[in-house]
Amino acid sequence: MTLLNTSFRTNFLHTYFKTTVVIPDTDKANYKAVWLLHGYTADDTTWMRNVNIEQLAAKYDMAIIMPEGRNAFYTDSNFIPYYSFFVKELMPKIQGMLPISDKPEDNYIAGVSMGGYGALKIGFLNPEKISKIAAMSPVADIEHFRNNEKSPMPLNTFDTIFDSPEKIKDNQIINIFNQVHPDQKVLQLCGDEDFMHEDNIVLKKFLEDKLNDNYTWLPVKGDHSWTTWSKNIDQVLGWLAK
Amino acid sequence: MTLLNTSFRTNFLHTYFKTTVVIPDTDKANYKAVWLLHGYTADDTTWMRNVNIEQLAAKYDMAIIMPEGRNAFYTDSNFIPYYSFFVKELMPKIQGMLPISDKPEDNYIAGVSMGGYGALKIGFLNPEKISKIAAMSPVADIEHFRNNEKSPMPLNTFDTIFDSPEKIKDNQIINIFNQVHPDQKVLQLCGDEDFMHEDNIVLKKFLEDKLNDNYTWLPVKGDHSWTTWSKNIDQVLGWLAK
Amino acid sequence: MTLLNTSFRTNFLHTYFKTTVVIPDTDKANYKAVWLLHGYTADDTTWMRNVNIEQLAAKYDMAIIMPEGRNAFYTDSNFIPYYSFFVKELMPKIQGMLPISDKPEDNYIAGVSMGGYGALKIGFLNPEKISKIAAMSPVADIEHFRNNEKSPMPLNTFDTIFDSPEKIKDNQIINIFNQVHPDQKVLQLCGDEDFMHEDNIVLKKFLEDKLNDNYTWLPVKGDHSWTTWSKNIDQVLGWLAK
Amino acid sequence: MTLLNTSFRTNFLHTYFKTTVVIPDTDKANYKAVWLLHGYTADDTTWMRNVNIEQLAAKYDMAIIMPEGRNAFYTDSNFIPYYSFFVKELMPKIQGMLPISDKPEDNYIAGVSMGGYGALKIGFLNPEKISKIAAMSPVADIEHFRNNEKSPMPLNTFDTIFDSPEKIKDNQIINIFNQVHPDQKVLQLCGDEDFMHEDNIVLKKFLEDKLNDNYTWLPVKGDHSWTTWSKNIDQVLGWLAK
Repeated sequence: MTLLNTSFRTNFLHTYFKTTVVIPDTDKANYKAVWLLHGYTADDTTWMRNVNIEQLAAKYDMAIIMPEGRNAFYTDSNFIPYYSFFVKELMPKIQGMLPISDKPEDNYIAGVSMGGYGALKIGFLNPEKISKIAAMSPVADIEHFRNNEKSPMPLNTFDTIFDSPEKIKDNQIINIFNQVHPDQKVLQLCGDEDFMHEDNIVLKKFLEDKLNDNYTWLPVKGDHSWTTWSKNIDQVLGWLAK
Repeated sequence: MTLLNTSFRTNFLHTYFKTTVVIPDTDKANYKAVWLLHGYTADDTTWMRNVNIEQLAAKYDMAIIMPEGRNAFYTDSNFIPYYSFFVKELMPKIQGMLPISDKPEDNYIAGVSMGGYGALKIGFLNPEKISKIAAMSPVADIEHFRNNEKSPMPLNTFDTIFDSPEKIKDNQIINIFNQVHPDQKVLQLCGDEDFMHEDNIVLKKFLEDKLNDNYTWLPVKGDHSWTTWSKNIDQVLGWLAK
Repeated sequence: MTLLNTSFRTNFLHTYFKTTVVIPDTDKANYKAVWLLHGYTADDTTWMRNVNIEQLAAKYDMAIIMPEGRNAFYTDSNFIPYYSFFVKELMPKIQGMLPISDKPEDNYIAGVSMGGYGALKIGFLNPEKISKIAAMSPVADIEHFRNNEKSPMPLNTFDTIFDSPEKIKDNQIINIFNQVHPDQKVLQLCGDEDFMHEDNIVLKKFLEDKLNDNYTWLPVKGDHSWTTWSKNIDQVLGWLAK
Repeated sequence: MTLLNTSFRTNFLHTYFKTTVVIPDTDKANYKAVWLLHGYTADDTTWMRNVNIEQLAAKYDMAIIMPEGRNAFYTDSNFIPYYSFFVKELMPKIQGMLPISDKPEDNYIAGVSMGGYGALKIGFLNPEKISKIAAMSPVADIEHFRNNEKSPMPLNTFDTIFDSPEKIKDNQIINIFNQVHPDQKVLQLCGDEDFMHEDNIVLKKFLEDKLNDNYTWLPVKGDHSWTTWSKNIDQVLGWLAK
């Protein structure tokens, strides 16, 4: 197993940006890759520090790419044009520099909480780059998240990213879906005690109606925490790998 | 020499935050400390990667603390309440966890460019915590910096931090000084070919008039780059240490 | 939670040496500490990459200190005087620099495989520094380990550390115990399918006879792998913390 | 500029092994590479921490690869078969995984002190992999180094690597050269106050006699320290790049 802590100067974000990458020992020229996104408050090392990512990368013989999210909600905003950076700079940079395939059938995106939102958003908007999406306990409705007292994100921080009712509306996953009509394979899970469980059920109903057999709901127990995610990440990566 | 890459979860910034710290081998219980701030686009490792910081820490027997700045201009904003974080969380955390003195006479702040602005701002506003300030090629006038076509910072990013004419005005170094009337020792330098040289001369005249013998201007050649700063950092740290 | 990647120049080992440290957020001046040793082929980051160490450090409110072992078997040899380094340089350095208690009642040592051997050895030889020992799947008999075809360690590497029959004999855990007659609390576990299970049973019988109520055997299932250790580390740290 | 801290499990060394790599931003598929070796007591981060390596990598548009040396003298020994690891595992691994050319005309090796010895040794023995060698203040005579009271390396450590008079003899740079008669380009420098200056002059006379125009001696002032090396590394990398 090779672990790479990469840091490169990005022109989009005007700073050095960290991505942690795990590559199996099978010496391929072009690995299948999972872009694995973290949640609010976490960083590029969080997945490694909570879950045995290397063992899973070896088990499924996939590279796993964990970029820092900078609390930017994987969205373009005035302070951090994160979405554009991710699609236009990060993906080609990593695929060009490391032995990572750039074919859509080899690129999958997954994430948890804010990263689950990011996986759905980046995935749906880029079917020519990404073929499978796994959303773990995603922020399924950003307006509800904004107003939920259990949300860890301060209102003024949220409002610097989604700075108008129109921007909130345009960035709802359901509206993004309706705009592009993607037909990728999607897996969704959300613990039955998660404070965003209801919003996830609404999204589930919408997506299974639209995607039919391409949609998979994984029913799991638990709350919005690493206890839930560490129990299910093996199954999620297995679904992406098959 | 001990090098520490620290990462801790901050309640102010709602994320993990990195600080690189260098501690000499003299086994003191309470080192004098230089809080060394970086410029726009850099991070907590930039000083180490451009200048022989460890050799200088050993030479002057001081700890050097290099926090990441996240392009936040060392200022409170909706997205990143950096200034409050620095003063209320970072300083006590580092002083409490590491063998760093918390006495003002042992704490100095220095920085380059945006970090030079940060050093003057954080220093002037906290004379009970910090006794000496060294500003290398600081952003001496943030309004001019905003409008200068040579500035590397996009307007929309700048405007998320300084989001009104009043906020710009309140955060000008000269206005901060006039508000608190600090009497710390201040060193300022700026290369003669720096694109912010004129603004630095204005600030120089203001500060030498206010601070008299407590103010030192170090005349240096060069532009706004590491070539200039690497030539002068030894002298700057020596001035802080004496 | 604070994560520290420390690197310092050691006079014993004549090189820079890495130790990963995790400190809870409870802002104590002197944390109880677990010195957590890794096995052959691993390094200072291995525990973090396989087990949710930070969650456990928070759960038990203890600092966890994970030094790199450099395949040195936690033993003094001509190439690497590791044991002396650990006791005379690493422990005082870390206890002096970080908020770690230096009282024996607050310092515990644990490890897995080669690190389980190290925990027993360093622990037994230093009752004035360490009060509890947890050995997970330890190399319980180094001579058997040397000659076991399932051992991952090449003979010539082993023989540079234990370079005579006398040195092997002197460094057997049972002989170390008989030499110093320590009376610390000891926990031992070894999976029922571990290739060193038999040697562990011999050591178990010896230690429970000598230590009586101070000795605890934790019967577990599994082989010599992280699958076994990740299942049991919570219970091991819980035993140390109580 | 991209900075990569890589760590991979090596089958030769039976452990995780760290290599720091710097890659310019010019997005090439196959960069020219300098394998840059450190001296006794240093590690894979030492070059970055003492010299502005990234600026130089950009200036000469070359990747710079800095593996940890583990005090192994870049030589096969019972404890660490470093030489075999470097040639058979490290070079193909890095060239296969990163955008580094594997052509000999694109691969250069350089080093300082013990790393200067390593550069000469690995370079001379592998002309089909490496076309230019730069030795900065190399250990030019390992027997003299062993017996020199100014040497930082303990005798017993040295003797675990070079464990017989024959092994010392076989590993002298002059004898390695005579064995393989390489005809690569070689640059050598050594400060006039270096404690190994005389040995360097002997090697200089030998190599200029054998290599003629392929040999370059760079006369420099200074002692055996980073003060000397930081002044000259720009010129050394420039010589490799031209």
